[in-house]
Amino acid sequence: MVFKKITLIGTSSDSFDAAADDALDRAENTLDNIHWAEVEELGVEVASVSGREYQAEVTVAFELD
Amino acid sequence: MVFKKITLIGTSSDSFDAAADDALDRAENTLDNIHWAEVEELGVEVASVSGREYQAEVTVAFELD
Amino acid sequence: MVFKKITLIGTSSDSFDAAADDALDRAENTLDNIHWAEVEELGVEVASVSGREYQAEVTVAFELD
Amino acid sequence: MVFKKITLIGTSSDSFDAAADDALDRAENTLDNIHWAEVEELGVEVASVSGREYQAEVTVAFELD
Amino acid sequence: MVFKKITLIGTSSDSFDAAADDALDRAENTLDNIHWAEVEELGVEVASVSGREYQAEVTVAFELD
Amino acid sequence: MVFKKITLIGTSSDSFDAAADDALDRAENTLDNIHWAEVEELGVEVASVSGREYQAEVTVAFELD
Amino acid sequence: MVFKKITLIGTSSDSFDAAADDALDRAENTLDNIHWAEVEELGVEVASVSGREYQAEVTVAFELD
Amino acid sequence: MVFKKITLIGTSSDSFDAAADDALDRAENTLDNIHWAEVEELGVEVASVSGREYQAEVTVAFELD
Amino acid sequence: MVFKKITLIGTSSDSFDAAADDALDRAENTLDNIHWAEVEELGVEVASVSGREYQAEVTVAFELD
Amino acid sequence: MVFKKITLIGTSSDSFDAAADDALDRAENTLDNIHWAEVEELGVEVASVSGREYQAEVTVAFELD
Amino acid sequence: MVFKKITLIGTSSDSFDAAADDALDRAENTLDNIHWAEVEELGVEVASVSGREYQAEVTVAFELD
Amino acid sequence: MVFKKITLIGTSSDSFDAAADDALDRAENTLDNIHWAEVEELGVEVASVSGREYQAEVTVAFELD
Repeated sequence: MVFKKITLIGTSSDSFDAAADDALDRAENTLDNIHWAEVEELGVEVASVSGREYQAEVTVAFELD
Repeated sequence: MVFKKITLIGTSSDSFDAAADDALDRAENTLDNIHWAEVEELGVEVASVSGREYQAEVTVAFELD
Repeated sequence: MVFKKITLIGTSSDSFDAAADDALDRAENTLDNIHWAEVEELGVEVASVSGREYQAEVTVAFELD
Repeated sequence: MVFKKITLIGTSSDSFDAAADDALDRAENTLDNIHWAEVEELGVEVASVSGREYQAEVTVAFELD
Repeated sequence: MVFKKITLIGTSSDSFDAAADDALDRAENTLDNIHWAEVEELGVEVASVSGREYQAEVTVAFELD
Repeated sequence: MVFKKITLIGTSSDSFDAAADDALDRAENTLDNIHWAEVEELGVEVASVSGREYQAEVTVAFELD
Repeated sequence: MVFKKITLIGTSSDSFDAAADDALDRAENTLDNIHWAEVEELGVEVASVSGREYQAEVTVAFELD
Repeated sequence: MVFKKITLIGTSSDSFDAAADDALDRAENTLDNIHWAEVEELGVEVASVSGREYQAEVTVAFELD
Repeated sequence: MVFKKITLIGTSSDSFDAAADDALDRAENTLDNIHWAEVEELGVEVASVSGREYQAEVTVAFELD
Repeated sequence: MVFKKITLIGTSSDSFDAAADDALDRAENTLDNIHWAEVEELGVEVASVSGREYQAEVTVAFELD
Repeated sequence: MVFKKITLIGTSSDSFDAAADDALDRAENTLDNIHWAEVEELGVEVASVSGREYQAEVTVAFELD
Repeated sequence: MVFKKITLIGTSSDSFDAAADDALDRAENTLDNIHWAEVEELGVEVASVSGREYQAEVTVAFELD
């Protein structure tokens, strides 16, 4: 059994939780067999958005076939 | 005055905040004189649970008698 | 174009999100041209407050004139 | 010449060496021109397996065409 | 569900694998519900032993009742 | 909006700047919507090349569709 | 032979050396077979004390029976 | 003698060297007695600029009067 | 309540403790409401001084009004 | 009593254990009074060797006369 | 085959590239069989020089006979 | 101008300051042109000594001829 890890950054105008979920939702749309995820960094983008964009960098581990 | 630190991982099906509170609730059930806590890592377990289990690894510092 | 970074710690009795917003609100009151922020650490103060005080250490980057 | 790095986690019921080899074997099945690998983390899974599952997180660098 | 983490250093005159197993064996003698372990450091003691003593510092996570 | 990060190592016989550009050039050939890049490591290969090969390990963040 | 590590924070109104000794004194009162200690962090508490309270976070390794 | 450290991010369309110089130039315009600087991070902004903007995060240490 | 952190480097010809105190003394001369400090680095300058100059890099956290 | 630390990288076509031993064997050939060693990194060279070359970067501490 | 690593800091009044080359030039004058180098830190000395002195701390790995 | 860095661990039965001085004294006995030193780690050896042996791991930078 071998796992692969990829790194995604989810975004949300609401919260860090929603930003992490955004990354996980995307991962689940394209990957089967996700086992766990690790939050690498939390941040907030201000300049290029209206209001605040919460960001969560998430490493997702999934099992390879 | 001497403090001791222990490391707990709280879990929640709702949010990282609730996961951290889960660890702190447990610590307060068994320890007096908790002074502060530090979040070490945030993660999400997917494979062994239904839905997503948010996890917060928390180091709790309490004063020894 | 040069950015400067400063480090603030916001607090909230409610959540880590609110603590990070607390730091960003303060930064926006005194600084123009904030571009982004990075969450450095999350913690909880227990001993010197009633209940729990969620804390978010946030580095804020803003553009110098 | 440009290299790309990917991160795999190999597993073995025997040893950390075998877990690292498991990740490298998988990488060599799908990638040409692997140049080197770096061990990022070693761990052991206990709860979801019988006995112990040794795990080696390995970053593999390969040359892009 | 809350996990606790403790840190043990296992030793072996044979190999790093055996040193990690030594720490895990000890943990399993006194703790129920071990879920996983992380290798924090590998080292070798030379001066105070005959030959070489391989050491593996291992953080063990177990579920609290 | 979700970003993905990948890690490339560019090379150059001239300078670290050119090595980073080499990685970015490659990324732009195959990816749309690159937003930013972070330099992870700088190094120099000597043994397997004539002269010196400057290397820049670069993490590239791009927006997923 | 297996070692266990615990983390204590000693305090002193005098110096960092005295703060580290405070943690070690406490450890020696309750643990046999202490082998070594590592200083993890040095800090100073100001707000909740009169004067300055020097703090030394110390990880103590002791041999389990 | 006491030093203070501040963190600036310089930018350049040309090179990392020029980005670091940009931060140092700005520091020298407003601060006397700069003693040294440390490069904390190198990065490249792509999305919000035309071409590439090289960035150097630099911590500058200067002597307080 | 929002805290701000600044980084100072104190110096002393006597000891690391005195160097940390030097940084704290300076901070207290210009800032109200200092809550705590963290030692980031200890060093010794030799070449540009007579004898040895002990240095303590200290991050000071104070409450903003 | 003063110790000095040096960093060696041992290699083996068999295992990480043998690679660490390779570095320690070399150290013992040229140094008296080795006290301990710390494993800094494990890696695998693939491109410039036949098969796989396991590598262990080891910091060796020895007592100076 | 065993490699040894040493750490040098090269300097240049021109650029970080030239500072790294300065360290590599020195290493090649006294060492045979250099295989690779890793840049550990980049900095700039200001106070004790005229203008700016770019510095590159470089770890050089060479094969022992 | 090129600097070289070496790592020494000084020891003292009295204090961390004395342990750092022990390493620097040794360095000055054998090296000319020491410029600065950085404290890497502080620790205490207990098991193999009577009382406590304070240890300071110090990296010393000196100018090569």
